[in-house]
Amino acid sequence: MVVSPINGSSPLSHSNGRTIPLSTFSRNSFVNVEKGDPVAFRSYWEKVRDECTVEIKGDEWMSYLGDTNNLCWYMVPQMRDAILRLHNVVGNAVTKDKFLVLGTGSSQLYQALLYALSPSESSHRPINVVAAAPYYSEYKDATDILQSRLFQWTGDAALYDKDEPYIEVVTSPNNPDGTLRVPVVNSRVEGKIIYDLAYYWPQYTPITDQLDHDVMVFTFSKCTGHAGSRIGWAFVKDIEVAKKMIRFTQLNSIGVSRQSQIRAAKMIGVICDGYKNLKSIESDHLFFDYSKRLMKERWEKFKIAIEKSKVFTLTKYPTSYCHFNKDLSEQYPAFAWLKCVEGIKDGESYLENLKIRTRGGERFGVSSKYVRVSMIGTDDEFNELCTRLSNAKRE
Amino acid sequence: MVVSPINGSSPLSHSNGRTIPLSTFSRNSFVNVEKGDPVAFRSYWEKVRDECTVEIKGDEWMSYLGDTNNLCWYMVPQMRDAILRLHNVVGNAVTKDKFLVLGTGSSQLYQALLYALSPSESSHRPINVVAAAPYYSEYKDATDILQSRLFQWTGDAALYDKDEPYIEVVTSPNNPDGTLRVPVVNSRVEGKIIYDLAYYWPQYTPITDQLDHDVMVFTFSKCTGHAGSRIGWAFVKDIEVAKKMIRFTQLNSIGVSRQSQIRAAKMIGVICDGYKNLKSIESDHLFFDYSKRLMKERWEKFKIAIEKSKVFTLTKYPTSYCHFNKDLSEQYPAFAWLKCVEGIKDGESYLENLKIRTRGGERFGVSSKYVRVSMIGTDDEFNELCTRLSNAKRE
Repeated sequence: MVVSPINGSSPLSHSNGRTIPLSTFSRNSFVNVEKGDPVAFRSYWEKVRDECTVEIKGDEWMSYLGDTNNLCWYMVPQMRDAILRLHNVVGNAVTKDKFLVLGTGSSQLYQALLYALSPSESSHRPINVVAAAPYYSEYKDATDILQSRLFQWTGDAALYDKDEPYIEVVTSPNNPDGTLRVPVVNSRVEGKIIYDLAYYWPQYTPITDQLDHDVMVFTFSKCTGHAGSRIGWAFVKDIEVAKKMIRFTQLNSIGVSRQSQIRAAKMIGVICDGYKNLKSIESDHLFFDYSKRLMKERWEKFKIAIEKSKVFTLTKYPTSYCHFNKDLSEQYPAFAWLKCVEGIKDGESYLENLKIRTRGGERFGVSSKYVRVSMIGTDDEFNELCTRLSNAKRE
Repeated sequence: MVVSPINGSSPLSHSNGRTIPLSTFSRNSFVNVEKGDPVAFRSYWEKVRDECTVEIKGDEWMSYLGDTNNLCWYMVPQMRDAILRLHNVVGNAVTKDKFLVLGTGSSQLYQALLYALSPSESSHRPINVVAAAPYYSEYKDATDILQSRLFQWTGDAALYDKDEPYIEVVTSPNNPDGTLRVPVVNSRVEGKIIYDLAYYWPQYTPITDQLDHDVMVFTFSKCTGHAGSRIGWAFVKDIEVAKKMIRFTQLNSIGVSRQSQIRAAKMIGVICDGYKNLKSIESDHLFFDYSKRLMKERWEKFKIAIEKSKVFTLTKYPTSYCHFNKDLSEQYPAFAWLKCVEGIKDGESYLENLKIRTRGGERFGVSSKYVRVSMIGTDDEFNELCTRLSNAKRE
């Protein structure tokens, strides 16, 4: 990584915003499946690239304001309508009688929610924030970075035994392990629950229920793959929670990029139009059909590689009825969660030796026998990953 | 304001992203000059709307990553190059030997800087954050919202007399009063300084110096008027500070919208191209010439209205040599800072009675005899403001 300060040298060559695919991996180059950059779905967006084109003229979308008639004043009406339409098409969440709060990705909404759900009296001790292990590796740092007196990370929800107020984060399907989750804290005190539903979309999991919780968070990044837009949203039941979230977002970033909103609204519109015109469209042009097939193919290939490796075992997932696809289906999570067989203690190091960069279990609050692998990178990365895993036999 | 939750009713009618100008104000409608939404410059961007058009196709700018060769990995090379080129054209800041950190507006950078400049050992007391009154009304809440143990708002820098570590925010030109500022704290302890240079652009003030401070923050919003893009940037001398800011931005929002970056880069490019082709272009098409003329005309009209009112006095500004325009010039701040004459105690209430909505002095850490008025709203708002002020004579 170039870390030198600006020195007036000639600029780097420009890219057109698309990752240049590596056609081959050399023996010494790393396959990086450590992060969850959702570029796997780019092949779909290439098909529909022109109908998804967004054009923004010089004098458009200048103001801070999106819609002064909405509590969430920085959200443009097109964004709001697109989000409601998408949930209406997919049927994964009940949006009626809830407030919609937009965020700069779901990361900002997470912090906004911690603020909004914490007791505001300064006499209070910090509220405990917990999630069942293995939990998303960034929750801890995102909670504790500013050492707030309002809230503090307390770790594994399954071990929580204090009779104090708490916030439980329920990520379902879970990052890293793809399992469907429910709250697990058993306390005499009533807790507040944040449902992080980043992966509750038909390409990753059967849509078993139209969820209807008090606080539900979604992100555009993992839904369509447009992570660079930084768009997330939350449905919240309580207007006071919504108001505090909006106040946080105002102080944190004075709202959310309006260009990103316009673009996200356009992409969502194209997805929904496809399902509206079901009969006249090839199934290859239906986003969730396409992306589910892609995930299924990857998982089938990946399972074979893991079996050949004899080094790891995989989480087992149930088959369920999907109300969206109207069929029985397995789960195809965005991440694979591997466990080392007996005798291997550190999955991340083991894979590092094979030039595969992953994220080890300790980052997720469990042992280093576990390791997380992204399933949503480029085709090239994924294929090379499978090749290297197939050859990973213990010596 | 509609604050009802989503109820499945028909969506609001869509706008095309441009505020619909109110052609007339009725006697009972408010002129809202309370906020600083910089829509005044839209008339310029209407002239160049087509050459500023940005087109983004469905498969572009999907990744979280902007440039893995840059310490600020979420910043695309086009954005970086545009910012450096702009400062090179305007000559308002020394960019050499500094790290460029991008933020979701300068609000996010402010929080990133408080985090990055605070001592990281938890044994420390919170570092004191101060700014000379009158100071930007949001600093206090933005500092204290999460009740961090790392930093705390301590108020007026001119009154600071502790021998403890501190961060002084120097906003120059200042919001609300437009004055050019230098640090004022007199302490035996060495402080850290954040220069908030949101308004250090030629339309607001003569560019007297190419500033070369350790921490300098700028925002696209007040430079070009595109507040909806949420783009800000900081130049920092110390790599460790830059790294901590980038870590904060990662946890806070996983970077900055790439669509916004592409658009901001395009607009900055159009501005800079104008000054490159000086001889072949009408001065009306040079952004800073156009916007300075607009600010000058508004200020001249505004001063007449204030004189007629006999209710307020205005801050006096010096005339200085502008290295960018190569002439002697006054300042034309984005906000007017009014002081009530003897006998009137509350400027905000006085103007509220005239149906003019403003922000009172107490929000800025001074007395209610002062009041801030936006000079960068729509033409219609501004003209109505002048009319109402002209008729504001005391009874």
